[in-house]
Amino acid sequence: MGAREVDLPDVVPGSGLPERVTIWEVGARDGLQNESAVVPVGVKLEFLDRMADAGSTVLEATSFVHPKWVPQLADAEELLAGLEKRPGVTYPVLVPNERGLDRALAAGVREIAIFASATETFANRNLNRTLDEQFAMFDPVVARARAEGLAVRGYVSMCFGDPWEGPVAREQVVVVGERLLDMGCSQLSLGDTIGVATPGQVKALLAAFDSVEPLAVHFHDTYGQALANTYAALECGVTTVDASAGGLGGCPYAESATGNLATEDLVWMLDGLGIAHGVDLDKLADTSKWMAGVLGRPSPSNVVRALRG
Amino acid sequence: MGAREVDLPDVVPGSGLPERVTIWEVGARDGLQNESAVVPVGVKLEFLDRMADAGSTVLEATSFVHPKWVPQLADAEELLAGLEKRPGVTYPVLVPNERGLDRALAAGVREIAIFASATETFANRNLNRTLDEQFAMFDPVVARARAEGLAVRGYVSMCFGDPWEGPVAREQVVVVGERLLDMGCSQLSLGDTIGVATPGQVKALLAAFDSVEPLAVHFHDTYGQALANTYAALECGVTTVDASAGGLGGCPYAESATGNLATEDLVWMLDGLGIAHGVDLDKLADTSKWMAGVLGRPSPSNVVRALRG
Repeated sequence: MGAREVDLPDVVPGSGLPERVTIWEVGARDGLQNESAVVPVGVKLEFLDRMADAGSTVLEATSFVHPKWVPQLADAEELLAGLEKRPGVTYPVLVPNERGLDRALAAGVREIAIFASATETFANRNLNRTLDEQFAMFDPVVARARAEGLAVRGYVSMCFGDPWEGPVAREQVVVVGERLLDMGCSQLSLGDTIGVATPGQVKALLAAFDSVEPLAVHFHDTYGQALANTYAALECGVTTVDASAGGLGGCPYAESATGNLATEDLVWMLDGLGIAHGVDLDKLADTSKWMAGVLGRPSPSNVVRALRG
Repeated sequence: MGAREVDLPDVVPGSGLPERVTIWEVGARDGLQNESAVVPVGVKLEFLDRMADAGSTVLEATSFVHPKWVPQLADAEELLAGLEKRPGVTYPVLVPNERGLDRALAAGVREIAIFASATETFANRNLNRTLDEQFAMFDPVVARARAEGLAVRGYVSMCFGDPWEGPVAREQVVVVGERLLDMGCSQLSLGDTIGVATPGQVKALLAAFDSVEPLAVHFHDTYGQALANTYAALECGVTTVDASAGGLGGCPYAESATGNLATEDLVWMLDGLGIAHGVDLDKLADTSKWMAGVLGRPSPSNVVRALRG
């Protein structure tokens, strides 16, 4: 069966929008990290393989955070040892500190990401560090990674609102982001970790940076705003968008659906806008349907439920 | 408890966006018409009263379609007889034909809506008429309603895709829409009845009309595109947006969530964009939580689940 039950309206390229977007697939890391179920490594490997087969070019594979903190990803070494890497696909992994970098290098990783906070309070809560201490922790990680020839992405979390601090000043996000770029990060992923942002705030934050070129966006659908915010970011020229296959990491029954933007919902929009991305919606939806079965609950993605419910 | 668990980021008015938007609340009609449960008239009256109390200014109250086709709204006369109309609030009702108009006039209705199709096939399936016969049916309805001093809205359904015809040509939607305006409709609600549209298609359709002034938009979240499409419409200058409180009419567990855009998700975006609309999110979310309890299932609205889950 085709992915779509009806033909789509004619593609209408949006004026001023990018011709091509890279979908940075975070399902295996950010998604599974936030699922209550611990998924067997074989399932993860099948997931990554199916996503590559569907056309994903960036598959964030896992995290070298201490297993005590994220038991869902305790199999990072085993996963990478079993991973059949495809040509043209990168498999970045999250690295929290120098010990994590050691493990990543030993596993042959060629691209890493670090996870920074835009706010003092979340740095303290998530990393047990001040903002300055956060940078001091990341400095040697990025320096060593770059010396080893690795690409480094910098996540900036809590870019719009913070559960403890409330609204986050754009200037503060820019200061943190520029610091990560100066450190050697080649890309920033600006995250609306609690999902409160709306399109005007997105445009204003992107405009506050010197250049949109190194900026990616990472939206959560907690308040249903993720795709509208993504569209606003595309209008600003952003060409890398984070998404999670089938909305992995959010539960449709949860009191607070805090999941990432579902890759399928993003793909539907990009297809309609005539923006190239390389991901096949049919294979993607099949993969998410299969994964929802593994997790024992429906996908929170509207597209997956509509096409494969 | 406040509606928001965290403070929102600073409001950032979008450049070129309207300063004020009218939310055309369709929950009581389009929402409840598509719920499997038949809701008692007392619940409907409480819903409308709570929505007016929350600040809604347009509450589409019911439909005078034959009860055989829509048993959920068979209590239209009883509802209108029991309705305590608030100053500054209009209560339009859907009228399918002259018989429906007779009933509406007898019930003291001052504003009606007619429901037209943009496509030949859906006109045939939904109304058992050709497009020409559809106009012939509506002509005397609109003429008499206008002669009685009533305002008339024209719904145009299947504006982007049609389950049988596939993509719908913009020119066809414009021809149907202009015909309804010529007939005497003061507003068109352009509906993406099957939820397939994306923002570029929305902008292209709106631009195909001579003026955006009489145009409202009505999006469904079947593929998660409703709010992104709404944002695109706001960028085109649209100032009336249809929405359904708590996403009434869609079920979060359904195989295909075909519901309208949830009013709460729209309000969240409008608040963040600094666009005035008059609806209090706290009271709105309380109302939707209560209604979800009546219906015995959670609301499909992300905002309602996040705030009142």
